[in-house]
Amino acid sequence: MRGLMQDWPLLIHKVIDYAANEHPKRPVVSRSVEGPMHRTNYAEVRERALKVAKRLEMDGIRLGDRVATLAWNTWRHLETWYGITGIGAIYHTVNPRLFEDQIVFIMSHAEDRLLFLDLTFVPLVEKIASRIPSVERFVVLTDGAHMPETSLRNAVAYEDWLAEADSDFAWLTLDETTAAGLCYTSGTTGEPKGVLYSHRSNVLHAMMTVMPDAFGLSTRDVVMPVVPLFHANSWSLAFAAPMAGSSLVMPGPKLDGASIYEILNAEKVTFTAAVPTIWFSLLQHLDAHAGQLPHLTRVGIGGSACPRAVIEAFEKRFGVQVLHAWGMTEMSPVGSICSIKPDIQTEDYDRLLDVKVTQGYAPFGVEWKITDDNGRKLPHDGKTFGRLKVRGTAVVRRYFRREDEEILDEEGFFDTGDVATLDENGYMRITDRSKDVIKSGGEWISSIELENLAVGHPDVAEAAVIGVHHPKWDERPILILVPKPGREPKKEDVLEFLRPRIAKWWMPDDVIVVPDIPHTATGKIQKTALRDRFRDYQLPTVA
Amino acid sequence: MRGLMQDWPLLIHKVIDYAANEHPKRPVVSRSVEGPMHRTNYAEVRERALKVAKRLEMDGIRLGDRVATLAWNTWRHLETWYGITGIGAIYHTVNPRLFEDQIVFIMSHAEDRLLFLDLTFVPLVEKIASRIPSVERFVVLTDGAHMPETSLRNAVAYEDWLAEADSDFAWLTLDETTAAGLCYTSGTTGEPKGVLYSHRSNVLHAMMTVMPDAFGLSTRDVVMPVVPLFHANSWSLAFAAPMAGSSLVMPGPKLDGASIYEILNAEKVTFTAAVPTIWFSLLQHLDAHAGQLPHLTRVGIGGSACPRAVIEAFEKRFGVQVLHAWGMTEMSPVGSICSIKPDIQTEDYDRLLDVKVTQGYAPFGVEWKITDDNGRKLPHDGKTFGRLKVRGTAVVRRYFRREDEEILDEEGFFDTGDVATLDENGYMRITDRSKDVIKSGGEWISSIELENLAVGHPDVAEAAVIGVHHPKWDERPILILVPKPGREPKKEDVLEFLRPRIAKWWMPDDVIVVPDIPHTATGKIQKTALRDRFRDYQLPTVA
Ligand SMILES: Nc1ncnc2c1ncn2[C@@H]1O[C@H](COP(=O)(O)OP(=O)(O)OP(=O)(O)O)[C@@H](O)[C@H]1O
Ligand SMILES: Nc1ncnc2c1ncn2[C@@H]1O[C@H](COP(=O)(O)OP(=O)(O)OP(=O)(O)O)[C@@H](O)[C@H]1O
Ligand SMILES: [Mg+2]
Ligand SMILES: [Mg+2]
Repeated sequence: MRGLMQDWPLLIHKVIDYAANEHPKRPVVSRSVEGPMHRTNYAEVRERALKVAKRLEMDGIRLGDRVATLAWNTWRHLETWYGITGIGAIYHTVNPRLFEDQIVFIMSHAEDRLLFLDLTFVPLVEKIASRIPSVERFVVLTDGAHMPETSLRNAVAYEDWLAEADSDFAWLTLDETTAAGLCYTSGTTGEPKGVLYSHRSNVLHAMMTVMPDAFGLSTRDVVMPVVPLFHANSWSLAFAAPMAGSSLVMPGPKLDGASIYEILNAEKVTFTAAVPTIWFSLLQHLDAHAGQLPHLTRVGIGGSACPRAVIEAFEKRFGVQVLHAWGMTEMSPVGSICSIKPDIQTEDYDRLLDVKVTQGYAPFGVEWKITDDNGRKLPHDGKTFGRLKVRGTAVVRRYFRREDEEILDEEGFFDTGDVATLDENGYMRITDRSKDVIKSGGEWISSIELENLAVGHPDVAEAAVIGVHHPKWDERPILILVPKPGREPKKEDVLEFLRPRIAKWWMPDDVIVVPDIPHTATGKIQKTALRDRFRDYQLPTVA
Repeated sequence: MRGLMQDWPLLIHKVIDYAANEHPKRPVVSRSVEGPMHRTNYAEVRERALKVAKRLEMDGIRLGDRVATLAWNTWRHLETWYGITGIGAIYHTVNPRLFEDQIVFIMSHAEDRLLFLDLTFVPLVEKIASRIPSVERFVVLTDGAHMPETSLRNAVAYEDWLAEADSDFAWLTLDETTAAGLCYTSGTTGEPKGVLYSHRSNVLHAMMTVMPDAFGLSTRDVVMPVVPLFHANSWSLAFAAPMAGSSLVMPGPKLDGASIYEILNAEKVTFTAAVPTIWFSLLQHLDAHAGQLPHLTRVGIGGSACPRAVIEAFEKRFGVQVLHAWGMTEMSPVGSICSIKPDIQTEDYDRLLDVKVTQGYAPFGVEWKITDDNGRKLPHDGKTFGRLKVRGTAVVRRYFRREDEEILDEEGFFDTGDVATLDENGYMRITDRSKDVIKSGGEWISSIELENLAVGHPDVAEAAVIGVHHPKWDERPILILVPKPGREPKKEDVLEFLRPRIAKWWMPDDVIVVPDIPHTATGKIQKTALRDRFRDYQLPTVA
């Protein structure tokens, strides 16, 4: 027997409709690419998104077509998402930090028909335009006055283009499983793979992230997604903030410490989120300028493991709660958030920190397990490492245009490619990517744990641990360091620093100081490149 | 094009599975019907719910069958819900405060096959058992030691019955639109009508109520649903609390002021919810015993309008935030919650109270409009009254076994039967039931507003306003009062109290003091009965 409740499909337009109805005047503030701050609100964003929808139809864009964006976080980028999905087309966010060849690869793979791009990226796109022939039109996210001369096909300034439509338009009525967004993984471990989000998965994922123990967004929050819209849906904030009626602050192209600091305080941001590297810069800026964060109450940190020192700095020195989160493009992206269960509440901040460095626990909508290589479930003892596998309402089923490739196990779980422990309170700790795991004498060593400890050393800016071949132990870890400006970390000194903190056999066999470490387009350490660089390296511990 | 995300149906068992996985030891504390306090947790509730499911199958209960409950809020009642829905059967909560004839009517209408009942209700059910022949078995929610002699067919003590099954059982895999629960409306305005919830509507509704600006539940909350499970899903708390990982406190059969006070403090409840009458008793108890509420932070109040004096008492004297909510059985039930948008934030508590007495605004998942009798939309000016119509993810489409009766308008909105205003900030104020509206000289007078003002008078315990025929004005309001114990409110005195607070033409034409006012099974004033009682009444203002 079926229930007799209304059929109210979980469509993305419901989110902006809701915000425009219940929170019409709530501010949406952006640092524009042209320079000045720009102020709008949800009612206007919806109005203009309706125009985008109508205007896209005039350009022949239809249900299922991919429309790419290559843009910073601004109100215009936001409007395009709601406009694109409002006609059943698919926003495809392209990460401008990818290599040109990668951008050409994913845009060709997706067969994008139209590209919305920021002024910043006109030169880049001009270079590759001939290699992405599927794109029929290039819409530059600016107004006529700022429109540059360009060779791009059918190029037009967004504001001029938009002015050709009015907002007298009705969102398409769609099945909620209709594709809505496309995002390729960072390509840290290989070729980027496309994840095709549905309206339903995006809306449910936003509902999940709004909850009190997730990001906990309310109408009284001012939310700044520093994490870009092109980085895994900006962790849902472009949906979650309007759904919660929170105000939005979009930082535009300026993501350095000084600019982030300025906008956090000027706009009284209460919640923000980004990868650790952003926060390293902010904390350095705060140090150098005796800065304070009087308005900020919470910061979401994820994408890479957040070092203990960063959590401690935010919480103790600035009174800002850190929500350490883990996720991946394939999970829309949120997979876990580290909020404090009553089970672990304690007056002892150091013990609390032991938990806060973990990636947290699963919100409602995410199920997980850790298994060995044969798929057998492993104990939740906080020690045993296993492959982390997930199932849920916003988790990938197949990759785009690789639909015949099965990626779920018999129970329907997706292998995250991460290796993790789970403790008795449900807190999960990522110890490695499975491709980066170091196996020494048959036992695993966590490169992430070593790296996080190493960056606690006062001279160290960044650390990477990789395994190198050892005739007896199979693999041994070496520690590669980037010094803080003006510092010269010494091998023995760093090892002394680590010694009391780790098991003896985890001690790196060597410490190597380098000027820089290669990163992916989402700011992650690119271990494949690092291993390539150290291919001919000889361990000092091997005769 | 369809998205490529996992198919993760929104089934009720996912909620208890989640709680048992992520929050296994979180306490579920109940005042048992037998007397003592009982302590369990989510892992055990799930384990026993699996047994319920298996045991129901042994009794031949199948997909789509209705299984009734006539019970207080306890862990056993909770287990039955998850067990029943876990095999695709339908929990049908019966309100024991209904008249016997009404109980017979709804149980016959639903054709319930099995009844779980508390000890309290054995005598009641024995009286009507012969009139509900569809019920094949009566399971008394107690253990063998407390099982009474009874004539009920196939009667068995729940614990004995449960012991015949183990928990080696897998929840049925169901389509998420499968019917899960059945609840009849209170019958305030006529015959009770059955609302058939689906798994999907219940899960989405719980996600909505967990959000920060709704009930805002977290793992650090201790949630006590005083509102019974048989009253519109206990406002979702039996789903929302495990979904949020909150602890649950179930008050059992004792809902008087003293008992509620005791359990609130003994169990350190942080969030509770019920209809206004419960809070009248609690506040009286607090007054009489100089009580304090050191743990409680929020109280949800709805089901009837919450008077200003109650909100003020909780907030000013006890430091407990009131969340005034409106809803109905047909909405699962939450339709609006009054939390504070930044638009209305102010230092002036009296101005804030003006907003807090409204029923609040719609959460994501609820859409509404106010219209005139011809369906034309009315302005959101905070003054114009109109029929309130709703659409949403957990709103009724048809009534059970009245499926050929269309109850939605052309836009898919359901007429709530309530009359309301909407202001420019989106706050909604219920002024009346459409059946209770008083029309004087062509203009509407809000009976609810008059009642709420009248109970602000120090001598008045309860107030009801009804319209009576007037030859010139068509209808005029009269005010019917129940005095506080030992007080004797005087007509002129009460009118003097009202005079500065309302428009002149709203002044009641008479004030009548009565010893009591008739209520429905959910504690609402039964205006139909009151109008019957005053059928032959003559207005003093008519010659
Ligand atoms: N809090 C965190 N701690 C540790 N690792 C994290 C955290 N958050 C995310 N990660 C890492 O980031 C990964 C997800 O990154 P993303 O989806 O951007 O692509 P990628 O995995 O880097 O690229 P590809 O899958 O193409 O190799 C996770 O699988 C995990 O390894
Ligand atoms: N906060 C509130 N303020 C005013 N009225 C409220 C509030 N909350 C609920 N109500 C009233 O309660 C009604 C819903 O009650 P319920 O679903 O229990 O059945 P009923 O409407 O009393 O019964 P029936 O529909 O059978 O006549 C709403 O339509 C509204 O009139
Ligand atoms: Mg990956
Ligand atoms: Mg009703």
